[in-house]
Amino acid sequence: MRNVAVAGIGQTKFGEHWDKSIRDLIVEAGNSAINDASIERNEIDSLFIGCMSSGRYTGQEHLGALAADNLRLGHIPATRFEGACASGSLALRNAYINVASGRSDVAIVLGVEKMTDVAGDEAITSLAAAGDQEWEAAIGLTFAGLYALMARKHMHDYGTTREQMALVSVNNHHNGFNNKYAQFQTKITVDDVLKSSMVADPLRLLDCSPITDGAAALVLMSADKARAVENPVWMIGTGQGSDTIALHDRASYTEIMATKVAAREALTDARIEMNNIDVLEVHDCFSINEIIALEDLGFCAKGDGGRFVENGEISLSGSIPTNTSGGLKAGGHPVGATGVRQAIDIVRQLRGDAFNKVNAQKGLTLNIGGSGATAVINVFSTEGK
Amino acid sequence: MRNVAVAGIGQTKFGEHWDKSIRDLIVEAGNSAINDASIERNEIDSLFIGCMSSGRYTGQEHLGALAADNLRLGHIPATRFEGACASGSLALRNAYINVASGRSDVAIVLGVEKMTDVAGDEAITSLAAAGDQEWEAAIGLTFAGLYALMARKHMHDYGTTREQMALVSVNNHHNGFNNKYAQFQTKITVDDVLKSSMVADPLRLLDCSPITDGAAALVLMSADKARAVENPVWMIGTGQGSDTIALHDRASYTEIMATKVAAREALTDARIEMNNIDVLEVHDCFSINEIIALEDLGFCAKGDGGRFVENGEISLSGSIPTNTSGGLKAGGHPVGATGVRQAIDIVRQLRGDAFNKVNAQKGLTLNIGGSGATAVINVFSTEGK
Repeated sequence: MRNVAVAGIGQTKFGEHWDKSIRDLIVEAGNSAINDASIERNEIDSLFIGCMSSGRYTGQEHLGALAADNLRLGHIPATRFEGACASGSLALRNAYINVASGRSDVAIVLGVEKMTDVAGDEAITSLAAAGDQEWEAAIGLTFAGLYALMARKHMHDYGTTREQMALVSVNNHHNGFNNKYAQFQTKITVDDVLKSSMVADPLRLLDCSPITDGAAALVLMSADKARAVENPVWMIGTGQGSDTIALHDRASYTEIMATKVAAREALTDARIEMNNIDVLEVHDCFSINEIIALEDLGFCAKGDGGRFVENGEISLSGSIPTNTSGGLKAGGHPVGATGVRQAIDIVRQLRGDAFNKVNAQKGLTLNIGGSGATAVINVFSTEGK
Repeated sequence: MRNVAVAGIGQTKFGEHWDKSIRDLIVEAGNSAINDASIERNEIDSLFIGCMSSGRYTGQEHLGALAADNLRLGHIPATRFEGACASGSLALRNAYINVASGRSDVAIVLGVEKMTDVAGDEAITSLAAAGDQEWEAAIGLTFAGLYALMARKHMHDYGTTREQMALVSVNNHHNGFNNKYAQFQTKITVDDVLKSSMVADPLRLLDCSPITDGAAALVLMSADKARAVENPVWMIGTGQGSDTIALHDRASYTEIMATKVAAREALTDARIEMNNIDVLEVHDCFSINEIIALEDLGFCAKGDGGRFVENGEISLSGSIPTNTSGGLKAGGHPVGATGVRQAIDIVRQLRGDAFNKVNAQKGLTLNIGGSGATAVINVFSTEGK
């Protein structure tokens, strides 16, 4: 297996892009990453794109070919990956496997979702397709509802408080304030969260990530090709796990087993331990999920996530700065783009040009699909393996 | 790279399964392949599934996790691939890359589409999402319309006749008659084709593959793991190419460049020449596409495809038996399943237990997405590389 470098990154502003189509978003992010990598288009020999539900949101499937075409990349292999909200990380994982194994020398990875072209209720119904259509969605169980069940159980079993969950959102909005690509550059307080409207008890509006349009892209290269790249960041590992599609079939509501399986594979691949990781981007689709992520990744004991957040451990000066970009909560959550965007923000930290700079040599992204039926972890470092 | 064996195959009957959900189809095909491979479920360490549009057809995305869950495969990496009608071949290609590169030892590959749960016009609208939504579908250009344009141009440029196209359907229905999994086990004549109702001039009903429910599966293994398998068939190569998403942006209407690019990669990977191939499964979504495929793969000169078919070269006793299973035309075309089903039928030939047995040591599948924006070729042999 070859070392794999991240040679370029790019993204659109995340938000409501009424004036842009899904192909506009793809082209904007893709061109931005190509320019950042300082490569010619004809050097790119493969394309990987993550998107959950463009068929329902925009009437357009077949995004691999569409992206290669609109980015003028010629007749290269171009594939779309779908794993609900983890689609972007799946595209990145597979690009990494292709480059590491020698099938591709220079790959472009894209993630995209254009969610605001349909009405709000259709957006929610489409998102529910990430869960169990027959046993969850059909009875009206939305994703806010699913994560509310997880939050309530976490509060019951471990004494996690409403305020501790609110602190996740406060942290992420604090960080997103400096991120010019974030959907919300707005600081909030615990009180703001607790007074925001109820969505699914105990989760309130400011516990929930928004509906977002956006795209993100990066360029991967083999070590040989990356010789001309100044200070490349290296992708050193990937891991993926799955679990039952329905929440009610799981052994636990407060633990995402797919994360633990993904972490094992990713760390083995990267040849590091979890305590070598300096900075995290994790999947805060709802505030409770960041707490569960910190536990499942092993940064604190099971049940201690709320207190860990309350103690300031995830802040920019804490023991493990988390979602220094603003995360999904402040940054926005264009579903298929999120995993790629998380990777970009880790790369920014390792390059030293993040919006909220921390001292980091190794970083990790955790991207969750559905209520935890898919988890993908990708690992980055300032040094190759 | 390691040698990759096909250890097991399985499929559902293709047709209208009013009594089965998409997960029923996945489970039936998957279990059938697992039983055929004589392995334990816990030996499978990764899952790859192709599906074009389950979100629109069934309200269910996130099929990777759903399939691993419903097949009781534990927490393994499980990913969905989409490239329109080539989705199944993309899943297989990526499984092959994972096994060959050492990331997976035993992979299950699935393809599925459940198309009959929506009304006919919605099925057609969903299929149009494989083309260019903004510049083709939005103005009412269906896939029959797109391939009709290609057929008319082929007739104009090369003198291809209506009867020659009809002979493609006659050949494939002749072969499908013996295939117990085929949607139509019905022989037809040239006269039947020419008298069938017009769909998009010059294409008539019996030039067109049907709307189908179905799933197909196979098990791939590393050479090490396959030591216990009796007479395994080997997957020895894969190739993929892309082209503009819209037909009108192409240099030619009668040539699919993505096929040529895919063939080059696949043959290099397999370390063979095209004239080493003994049997083909190609993408006859419309009769004209089989003629174009034979030309693009190089079995006859450009423009000679119609005469090649008329001369009987694709028949069971011809120089290159093609779609010996019945193809998409007689066998049915559950979009995401087709590429996997094609692979299964080549494996049946190489094992010597096909429904219409020919003498073959090497076989190839050509699976096309959209009007040619994606092409995927997978190559199989009775011997490893």
